Amino acid sequence: MARHDGRKANQLRELKIKRRFTKNAAGSVLIQTGATTVLCTASVESSVPPWLKGSGKGWITAEYNMLPGSTPTRKSRKVDGRTTEIQRLIGRSLRAVADLEALGEQMITVDCDVLDADGGTRTASITGAFIALVDALQTIVLPDPKKFPLVDSVAAVSVGLVNGAGALDLDYIEDVDAAVDMNVVMTGSGKFVEVQGAGEEATFTEEELMKLIQLGKHGVKVLTEAQAKALGKKWLW
Amino acid sequence: MARHDGRKANQLRELKIKRRFTKNAAGSVLIQTGATTVLCTASVESSVPPWLKGSGKGWITAEYNMLPGSTPTRKSRKVDGRTTEIQRLIGRSLRAVADLEALGEQMITVDCDVLDADGGTRTASITGAFIALVDALQTIVLPDPKKFPLVDSVAAVSVGLVNGAGALDLDYIEDVDAAVDMNVVMTGSGKFVEVQGAGEEATFTEEELMKLIQLGKHGVKVLTEAQAKALGKKWLW
Amino acid sequence: MARHDGRKANQLRELKIKRRFTKNAAGSVLIQTGATTVLCTASVESSVPPWLKGSGKGWITAEYNMLPGSTPTRKSRKVDGRTTEIQRLIGRSLRAVADLEALGEQMITVDCDVLDADGGTRTASITGAFIALVDALQTIVLPDPKKFPLVDSVAAVSVGLVNGAGALDLDYIEDVDAAVDMNVVMTGSGKFVEVQGAGEEATFTEEELMKLIQLGKHGVKVLTEAQAKALGKKWLW
Amino acid sequence: MARHDGRKANQLRELKIKRRFTKNAAGSVLIQTGATTVLCTASVESSVPPWLKGSGKGWITAEYNMLPGSTPTRKSRKVDGRTTEIQRLIGRSLRAVADLEALGEQMITVDCDVLDADGGTRTASITGAFIALVDALQTIVLPDPKKFPLVDSVAAVSVGLVNGAGALDLDYIEDVDAAVDMNVVMTGSGKFVEVQGAGEEATFTEEELMKLIQLGKHGVKVLTEAQAKALGKKWLW
Amino acid sequence: MARHDGRKANQLRELKIKRRFTKNAAGSVLIQTGATTVLCTASVESSVPPWLKGSGKGWITAEYNMLPGSTPTRKSRKVDGRTTEIQRLIGRSLRAVADLEALGEQMITVDCDVLDADGGTRTASITGAFIALVDALQTIVLPDPKKFPLVDSVAAVSVGLVNGAGALDLDYIEDVDAAVDMNVVMTGSGKFVEVQGAGEEATFTEEELMKLIQLGKHGVKVLTEAQAKALGKKWLW
Amino acid sequence: MARHDGRKANQLRELKIKRRFTKNAAGSVLIQTGATTVLCTASVESSVPPWLKGSGKGWITAEYNMLPGSTPTRKSRKVDGRTTEIQRLIGRSLRAVADLEALGEQMITVDCDVLDADGGTRTASITGAFIALVDALQTIVLPDPKKFPLVDSVAAVSVGLVNGAGALDLDYIEDVDAAVDMNVVMTGSGKFVEVQGAGEEATFTEEELMKLIQLGKHGVKVLTEAQAKALGKKWLW
Repeated sequence: MARHDGRKANQLRELKIKRRFTKNAAGSVLIQTGATTVLCTASVESSVPPWLKGSGKGWITAEYNMLPGSTPTRKSRKVDGRTTEIQRLIGRSLRAVADLEALGEQMITVDCDVLDADGGTRTASITGAFIALVDALQTIVLPDPKKFPLVDSVAAVSVGLVNGAGALDLDYIEDVDAAVDMNVVMTGSGKFVEVQGAGEEATFTEEELMKLIQLGKHGVKVLTEAQAKALGKKWLW
Repeated sequence: MARHDGRKANQLRELKIKRRFTKNAAGSVLIQTGATTVLCTASVESSVPPWLKGSGKGWITAEYNMLPGSTPTRKSRKVDGRTTEIQRLIGRSLRAVADLEALGEQMITVDCDVLDADGGTRTASITGAFIALVDALQTIVLPDPKKFPLVDSVAAVSVGLVNGAGALDLDYIEDVDAAVDMNVVMTGSGKFVEVQGAGEEATFTEEELMKLIQLGKHGVKVLTEAQAKALGKKWLW
Repeated sequence: MARHDGRKANQLRELKIKRRFTKNAAGSVLIQTGATTVLCTASVESSVPPWLKGSGKGWITAEYNMLPGSTPTRKSRKVDGRTTEIQRLIGRSLRAVADLEALGEQMITVDCDVLDADGGTRTASITGAFIALVDALQTIVLPDPKKFPLVDSVAAVSVGLVNGAGALDLDYIEDVDAAVDMNVVMTGSGKFVEVQGAGEEATFTEEELMKLIQLGKHGVKVLTEAQAKALGKKWLW
Repeated sequence: MARHDGRKANQLRELKIKRRFTKNAAGSVLIQTGATTVLCTASVESSVPPWLKGSGKGWITAEYNMLPGSTPTRKSRKVDGRTTEIQRLIGRSLRAVADLEALGEQMITVDCDVLDADGGTRTASITGAFIALVDALQTIVLPDPKKFPLVDSVAAVSVGLVNGAGALDLDYIEDVDAAVDMNVVMTGSGKFVEVQGAGEEATFTEEELMKLIQLGKHGVKVLTEAQAKALGKKWLW
Repeated sequence: MARHDGRKANQLRELKIKRRFTKNAAGSVLIQTGATTVLCTASVESSVPPWLKGSGKGWITAEYNMLPGSTPTRKSRKVDGRTTEIQRLIGRSLRAVADLEALGEQMITVDCDVLDADGGTRTASITGAFIALVDALQTIVLPDPKKFPLVDSVAAVSVGLVNGAGALDLDYIEDVDAAVDMNVVMTGSGKFVEVQGAGEEATFTEEELMKLIQLGKHGVKVLTEAQAKALGKKWLW
Repeated sequence: MARHDGRKANQLRELKIKRRFTKNAAGSVLIQTGATTVLCTASVESSVPPWLKGSGKGWITAEYNMLPGSTPTRKSRKVDGRTTEIQRLIGRSLRAVADLEALGEQMITVDCDVLDADGGTRTASITGAFIALVDALQTIVLPDPKKFPLVDSVAAVSVGLVNGAGALDLDYIEDVDAAVDMNVVMTGSGKFVEVQGAGEEATFTEEELMKLIQLGKHGVKVLTEAQAKALGKKWLW
């Protein structure tokens, strides 16, 4: 069945990645997938959360936010449950590929601020946040310069069942129509980090679940290549 | 590899379900799985959220809370990100098997208060909340008495990779040890509602993902039987 | 004048006390008086509030909360003025029989969560909290093992003027009807801890005040015996 | 035993009442008892709380607040549990002598802002609030001009056990020393509105309780005369 | 053009300054300009904000608040944007004439609580706060007793364009009518501290701007003389 | 005296204005002055604040926010007093050139989110917000299409005394050094909207005040030309 914008079932939207978009943050990446635009900035702090003090380990966390003007109807600045859920997902995804001991006792916060929202903001945030994180890590002093605090890359994509058919990288129109929505977070080496599939007041069969997982795998593979291209070859794990 | 409490890999903890535990709420279920105890109460309100007014449709939502004394170290009453994430999951799971038009313009809130926490509180909440919901629905006037607002049952279980092996219904000790933690929410008829699998600062292979999904399927099947037993046979979909 | 449930003026509702209702908290008591059910858990922390640091003295405090499902109409989780007033009363009542120096620099928080509300929740909380406190104190290391941090027992009951007559241990129906409502908190040895009597948009005479105080004295005496029975004889002061 | 400021056991501190202290509020009373100074202003609103809409009844409520500069050590502006407890007491005390139907559907809020605190701020607030309320009621249109919305006067005083002896109208030094602290709220006609007696980490006997009640009765009688003098004789009930 | 209360364009309202209005605060000034009444209290704390710890420097800050009864229609106690804006202005104004090193590591908070509001509350707050600050500084121990922590006096006044004409010290009626509203904060020695001029949904010409600045200069000069009179001559810089 | 970046005293930083930077908001402008970057989006709502309902008038308001990554040290997302002060200034500035009756009963919110901060963020916000507002107004239906809801343009610039000399459009380094900091908001036709000058723990003379006003006038004139160039000539008032 045809998608409303003419894409194939397993085709991503047009992807643009712009590193060093702003100057003050240690890492700053503007990532655009179709009409979704997210600014990911990574900031370094020399102190860690209380429970890590004296442990020799660092911490990586994330905050996610949609700017009021990012949606056709203005979005209030109030933090809601969806926001906290998403920023916890981004933080976990980044830490899954990190070596927090190699980071030493410093904290990196990656802020993902959505400037324009057209579906897939949380997965674009993860894909862009990883690049901002790499850039920030290159500006800091590490305990052991030979031990980089990342052991793999990470990227994410949404997949879903739209009108009964699997579709990769849903935009807002498809997202609203989708009976099932799944986010797949994977590493550059092909391991899974998170799989979150949910029926929207609907359910799905095991067969459909398997199909969506395969679509997600494919999407992350293409995104990983784009990350490596943006960062330069040596950042390919 | 043996589990610390002697269970088999695919064995649930001892399950107890007590209906009508308290008197004031329309539905009230005390569910215990091992040392995890959750009180699920379902309350009915005659008004719906603003966006449903005049639609003829009802709403089902959930709140989740851990009592301060439910953990060995006292838990503060402050609501955190984890709490909002869990109550959103419970609400979505209940709505996935509901026919909100058959409910008419009334709202049911299921409160899941954890009295004792030993792992698996969110999945026990879903399994117990469904029963409290059934009980509450039997106390109210429906638009069409022949059209019950539930079209299927729903239950949930946690699975995980502990010391490299799959394990069903993790208790707290296993949960801390688990490299991967997954919650599987399914209907009595064997459809998936949600699958949430996450590495704890770790990743997992596609093979491991498949194994966990199978373990979860098995667990939900046993839980569905227990729900039907507690409610009486006619509640088997 | 007859009471609606057939009780005599000076008769308590049926009382049930269940110790160790949950496993994680150091003290855990389920207390039921008629259709009012409160779970009292006592948790121990090794640090005290800032103003006691270095004093050698401990602290005992309480939190009170009604679960949303504890009332026929669902109660929102928001903390209101009534809640803070009640938890301050419970804390003061427990400290009135405590020897905070004998406790040493540790803090005990007793959480009183109302599972089912049918009047008298604050007084049932005090009566149950005392037992949970005793249980928790038996699990901890004291500065001087021969000096137990409690010097008396404490229990509480509500009394009121219903249709012009004094009545002990009001249930919800009587509470709504009562022109005057009084809470009497006393020790096992017959001393007063708190007396709080208030007209509900009404006033009362000195004679009525005296009558209510006597009814309260009687009620606490019976409750003290029930506490001693639950705890074992050696806990009778 | 002598009191530190030379007063007799049953003697109030010097009392000053200044009506119309500020111009904007409908009622405005500066009340001083010793070094305690409270500004009580009564404001009228033409709408009532939601639960009274359409009932034909009005509402009287109170807010209590200590200015940061009212204590020797600056008090933060944050609202604490003590504050909400006190403002609920003031509101109940005023409503106990009010005829809310005679008020019609309008709301009066009495704000008690403590400018200088030296003990007894909540009881001085009640005594002053009543006068501000009378003044505000004279500025408004009533449903039936012949039916004034107050049926009695109300005043309050603190009493306590200081060094084993009863004492009336405690100042801050005595309040800190007192083993038992009691607030007595009564009407001009000698009825009780509230009696709140509490041991400060101490207990009290029935005999002591009776003595404190008598001291309170005496104090309120003197305060009632002062209120009538400030308002003019016709305000004596 | 005549002003509604008969004042000349460059005439202040009647000014009353009462020092030591309350007893507990180190400095306490009741300032009245026309029907505007503000209580300014200055409290001393021995600790400074974190960023000054160990610096040897002190800090002076302010809080501003309107009591609910200060306006004809009761004002809610909620803090709004206007409040924070005003208290930042008062704090900056006081610090502009302070020598924070001469103060040593202590903090003074000046609380400006508006008891009656008839326009010009923020400027009356600054003028009164300065006097309360002087009084508080005389009660404390300074690092070098010969070096007083104030190097000049500060006072403030509002000016505005009302019906096209300049007017000094606007009351509420004029404030509502004014097309342009300006606050001028100056020192006793004739230096500017802050100039804040804003059109109320209107604009103003350079000529009008200059005229308002001259009116403000004149007003502050008269206020400075009143401050010196209240404090005694030696406080004239 | 030379400026650290080689600019003349009356020279602005390099200015870039990019309209339609994002797609969802009705107006969207990325404004850059030197290393300061602000995204201004204007959103339209069909309802107005309660106090304007039924008045036939519209409303224009603004929100200001610095993204966490906009500063070298990460800025927390908490709203502080400075933020509310700035967004009130932006809102007033836009309304000063608006004809709210010509807008009809609709509300426009301009969100100014600072992506990169190097001084002058509030003045850049005003200059950019005006352009976003013009763009948004062209997308909506007006009561009278011939009556555009703007009667003039508005722009703003900061000026200051740095090392004793006046300087236009301060960057962060100069801002920190400045003894006096002033924001000048003016219309395209040369009228003043706001003048806010403040000594940073310092004072300034009348002569210095006059000099800064002249510098500000010059700066706004250049900015007005840039706005007209971005919008097209017909937008020159």
